[in-house]
Amino acid sequence: MKIDGRPWRPIWLEADGGRVGIIDQTLLPHRFETRSLATLDGAAHAIAAMQVRGAPLIGATAAYGVALAMAEDAGDGVLDRAVAVLAATRPTAVNLRWALDRMDRHLRPLAPGERREAAYAEAARLVEADVAANAAIGRHGLELVRAAARRRGPGWPVRILTHCNAGWLATCDWGTALAPIYMAHDAGIPLHVWVDETRPRNQGAALTAWELLAHGVPHTVVADNAGGHLMQRGLVDLCIVGADRVTAAGDVANKIGTYLKALAARDSGVPFHVAVPSSTIDWTIEDGIAGIPIEERSADEVRHIQGMAEDGRVLSVRLVPDGSPAANPAFDVTPARLVDGLITERGRCAATAAGLRGLFPDHS
Amino acid sequence: MKIDGRPWRPIWLEADGGRVGIIDQTLLPHRFETRSLATLDGAAHAIAAMQVRGAPLIGATAAYGVALAMAEDAGDGVLDRAVAVLAATRPTAVNLRWALDRMDRHLRPLAPGERREAAYAEAARLVEADVAANAAIGRHGLELVRAAARRRGPGWPVRILTHCNAGWLATCDWGTALAPIYMAHDAGIPLHVWVDETRPRNQGAALTAWELLAHGVPHTVVADNAGGHLMQRGLVDLCIVGADRVTAAGDVANKIGTYLKALAARDSGVPFHVAVPSSTIDWTIEDGIAGIPIEERSADEVRHIQGMAEDGRVLSVRLVPDGSPAANPAFDVTPARLVDGLITERGRCAATAAGLRGLFPDHS
Repeated sequence: MKIDGRPWRPIWLEADGGRVGIIDQTLLPHRFETRSLATLDGAAHAIAAMQVRGAPLIGATAAYGVALAMAEDAGDGVLDRAVAVLAATRPTAVNLRWALDRMDRHLRPLAPGERREAAYAEAARLVEADVAANAAIGRHGLELVRAAARRRGPGWPVRILTHCNAGWLATCDWGTALAPIYMAHDAGIPLHVWVDETRPRNQGAALTAWELLAHGVPHTVVADNAGGHLMQRGLVDLCIVGADRVTAAGDVANKIGTYLKALAARDSGVPFHVAVPSSTIDWTIEDGIAGIPIEERSADEVRHIQGMAEDGRVLSVRLVPDGSPAANPAFDVTPARLVDGLITERGRCAATAAGLRGLFPDHS
Repeated sequence: MKIDGRPWRPIWLEADGGRVGIIDQTLLPHRFETRSLATLDGAAHAIAAMQVRGAPLIGATAAYGVALAMAEDAGDGVLDRAVAVLAATRPTAVNLRWALDRMDRHLRPLAPGERREAAYAEAARLVEADVAANAAIGRHGLELVRAAARRRGPGWPVRILTHCNAGWLATCDWGTALAPIYMAHDAGIPLHVWVDETRPRNQGAALTAWELLAHGVPHTVVADNAGGHLMQRGLVDLCIVGADRVTAAGDVANKIGTYLKALAARDSGVPFHVAVPSSTIDWTIEDGIAGIPIEERSADEVRHIQGMAEDGRVLSVRLVPDGSPAANPAFDVTPARLVDGLITERGRCAATAAGLRGLFPDHS
């Protein structure tokens, strides 16, 4: 997508054909700085320090991390070490393991002399496959936005609510939930996006708002508490969110608070859709509430928040009394009954076992 | 209620019988400082700067503000000016106008020489009436906590979720939603309170958590996004919130986000109750969604947040990109159909026109 009119991706091969560029997302939305990764350890640090985040982008960074290791020494020992070091950066990231397995499977049979070039090529293919899947999600989701635009009538903006950040910063481009929004905006459909702040880590206020501002999509940030009121008053035409995991029956695990918005959407008759690349579907689980473990993250994410002080410093402030405990469940499960549809790279379907089987017969 | 074992109220007459003490709530939860109000302008500043907040406490501070004015000069002109200055501090606060009308009606017929003493006495009566009403709400709400304790079984804490701050800091003592919690805690019923952070102004994380910590009630702060997940997983036995306005048919206007918690409570079968002094019931309105205007507060409350930096300074940091707009609806309306019951100083009733008429036949 664009920053001030110029196309960007969140990860790229530098002009020297060796180093890998990223945007340091820990400084957003306050400062835009890029980093140039030159070594395996640099790539591992970028993932562990969350300079890059979002499952697809973590996978892509790990793939390039293996390539950076191979550029120094393409022996089996270094390949072993690269996979181990990168896998340890975010232990629960499924996509990270998947990308590393793919790189290892591709490189292991090759002679060391062939591995450098093959690693860069495979990392690039992995990136392009993600971009293509997200663009397909965008095209399929665009139909929903067009339908909402028809209901609104000519000249009225389609008002879309989203939660967290499922945008281009979380993927290799386009994003998932934001892909239909970018497609619609680029197609000239007037839009207005309600951006949930998304406490505790504020990915909405910090990243989604920044993305939309940079690309020129009209939007307004709201507290997570506001979405129910907005829907009740008829100010939302469509909800689109991403997902961290979707079960074979259509239950959706996504950032904490998603379930509350799905309840409000149902109560006010607002369509609620989930954008999900097929790699996020867990075909081994039906019941998301019983089957998906919810990560409990550090209480300090609730007790503190990061922002920019008047003097321009980006710093953390404490919000709760010294002595009050906090809990931080990072995800919740939205039951399939509250989801009006799934948007995948193969098309849209109902959030049901039959709906998913229809699009993915190879998994039925 | 207590701070470290010592009883406190949020407003009191100082030992000299003239000045009025308050807790400066703008510094909570980070610093506990009291202020001594000696003049009308001091009282007006305390309300305008939100050193005191919460409808009943604003009313009490305004009443004492009139008394402070009368102590300097009890002439008609000063009485006029006191009412006008105090009324202008928070233009939309219904309770503020009500308290000032009561003081004016009481003092106007008196000779100036009698007004000082009468003003202090009337302000004290207004405070004690609020304390008595809240204590009654606490006793009636205690029955709900006892019932939940019986369902939980001996030794298991009753887990109560609350939103915003409807505690003793918002009233003259006890609070409304927190009154049953303090009564239950003091009666030895084991409790655990889930405290919604309550963005954007964070009254939950800053004030409710501080109150509960100071009084010794076990609690945990969570992001506003977490409540649906907690209820879905069976971790909440009861929700109790306050209200800013309740219609004659039982619709509830309360802090933004309350509606989302009511939806989640209904979806998971968790009882959802609203503590409401009868002064908060608006007998002129039935349909809260059509009839209650929702205050849109400054976008800066969403764009910024206040907290304590590592160096101990309490400061504001910006959370959103420079250039992203924000919206800040301050309240939402929970339809009566989602409310399991109202807790008033006269007892509990259904959130229906018939339920309210049963308790308040004088209004039917």
